[in-house]
Amino acid sequence: MHNITRVALVGGTHGNELSGIYLLKKWDKTSQFARWPQLELTQTIANPRACEHSVRYMETDLNREFALEDLQNYRLVGYEQLLAKKLNQQFGPRGRSPVELMIDLHNTTSNMGACLMLLRKDAFNIGMAAYVKDRMPEAVIYFQDNLPKERKRFLISVAQQGVTVEVGPQPNSVLQQETLELMETMTAHILDYVVLYNDDKLASLPAGFEAFQYTEDLVLPTDEQGQRLAMVSKRLDRRDFHPVEPGDVIMETFDGVPICWEGDYTAYPLFINEAAYHRSHSAMSMSQRIVLRCADYF
Amino acid sequence: MHNITRVALVGGTHGNELSGIYLLKKWDKTSQFARWPQLELTQTIANPRACEHSVRYMETDLNREFALEDLQNYRLVGYEQLLAKKLNQQFGPRGRSPVELMIDLHNTTSNMGACLMLLRKDAFNIGMAAYVKDRMPEAVIYFQDNLPKERKRFLISVAQQGVTVEVGPQPNSVLQQETLELMETMTAHILDYVVLYNDDKLASLPAGFEAFQYTEDLVLPTDEQGQRLAMVSKRLDRRDFHPVEPGDVIMETFDGVPICWEGDYTAYPLFINEAAYHRSHSAMSMSQRIVLRCADYF
Repeated sequence: MHNITRVALVGGTHGNELSGIYLLKKWDKTSQFARWPQLELTQTIANPRACEHSVRYMETDLNREFALEDLQNYRLVGYEQLLAKKLNQQFGPRGRSPVELMIDLHNTTSNMGACLMLLRKDAFNIGMAAYVKDRMPEAVIYFQDNLPKERKRFLISVAQQGVTVEVGPQPNSVLQQETLELMETMTAHILDYVVLYNDDKLASLPAGFEAFQYTEDLVLPTDEQGQRLAMVSKRLDRRDFHPVEPGDVIMETFDGVPICWEGDYTAYPLFINEAAYHRSHSAMSMSQRIVLRCADYF
Repeated sequence: MHNITRVALVGGTHGNELSGIYLLKKWDKTSQFARWPQLELTQTIANPRACEHSVRYMETDLNREFALEDLQNYRLVGYEQLLAKKLNQQFGPRGRSPVELMIDLHNTTSNMGACLMLLRKDAFNIGMAAYVKDRMPEAVIYFQDNLPKERKRFLISVAQQGVTVEVGPQPNSVLQQETLELMETMTAHILDYVVLYNDDKLASLPAGFEAFQYTEDLVLPTDEQGQRLAMVSKRLDRRDFHPVEPGDVIMETFDGVPICWEGDYTAYPLFINEAAYHRSHSAMSMSQRIVLRCADYF
């Protein structure tokens, strides 16, 4: 078993998601980092200029700029493309990073609660998910390890291990105390887990836990001019991770025609009506409920 | 009594507030404007470029650019300052406008429900508020007629009469069906009222109604560098128009010190944690509950 000591806490990857930015400020101010003396914790604001302007990004989404070929492509010189190269220097390089864990702090405008998003199913991540869900039953565990390789170009890909803490609903450029506290609780549990993991004291983990597994993305229908013809049905709004059965209404056109879920499985939608995805007319992502047994991974 | 016939419906004054933009599209597509043949209805997207970019504004807040002296100041050539002059030409000029009523459609990220915002207490507005509140009991009537003159520089100031329909909570760049329906219901009631008003058929108005009256704005405390030292207390979040008593906790510093309401009256906060006001570190506006009697104005 490999020790996880160098841990990078990152906020402000999206400049208008305030909980991570303020959590780092709060922990700095109140010396909370000293709670984990066993770890070499660093804290970083990934996109300070976007934070200053309180926008998601200046030119392109920083959290989609970490594909290995893009990091190595010297012709990509947009603002966030350059920033990604700098962060890859600072925390990477991707594939050979000395940073053992990166925790990237995000908000969503969708009602996803405190969501732990994981890109791999390995013993470290499964243990983390089991631990967090056990200590924080309201947490949602979400696996997107089945995303196609070309979509795994998140900032956390630069480090050896990475997790995303995604908390909502919170409008962009807003700081809500309750959302901040959810993020704080989940992040502290993750760090507590890392210490236990290093000490090989995972015996008390639960046997298994409930999680959600990414399946597909749904977009709103548009006309030839790219104008939306429908919106997400109000039956779904704010009901992220609630089951949708085949045939259930999920959208409605502006003249009142219902659009139903055509999948052949019970879907659990997330990122319902997420503001950041409005340009692509994304309606929601779909997932399936799964139950994972820790014994299968240890 | 003066007839109100020329009515301008305006959406997209802020480009990331989607309900108004889509309400106009929806009504256009489904020929809803024909419901009020007695009125000369026009529909306008005030800031199409901001809508295209899904931002509140390009350079400055369009809805603060309609002070008479600014409209007449030819040295003000920022994007929205020019746009304001164009809109003043189109709908005004302010003080001599042929447009008898402008209805400006807005969203807020705060939990204000369907809120009818009025800048004057005259017979027309009082009747409108009474009518809307009677048909739509969940509506909130909000008067800001006591705003200082220098702050009355909204787009609606260009027309003879103006009202703002403000519906929330809805994150910026998001379209929620329920929010759209609340805006649609309130706007239709306003237009129905105008027809009744012109026909002098107001006899059935209720004797009075509950409303809220603007009192003051509260900002978050900041340090010498302009960094926030506190956030709105979670006890208030999403509780717009719920009473706050003197001494109640309304904010909390990042190291956990509560900040209490120091006013000497029961306040009803609104625009709690509104995203658009993050630059000014606005925490909320305060109002007082009032009861208005129609007989006092007719």
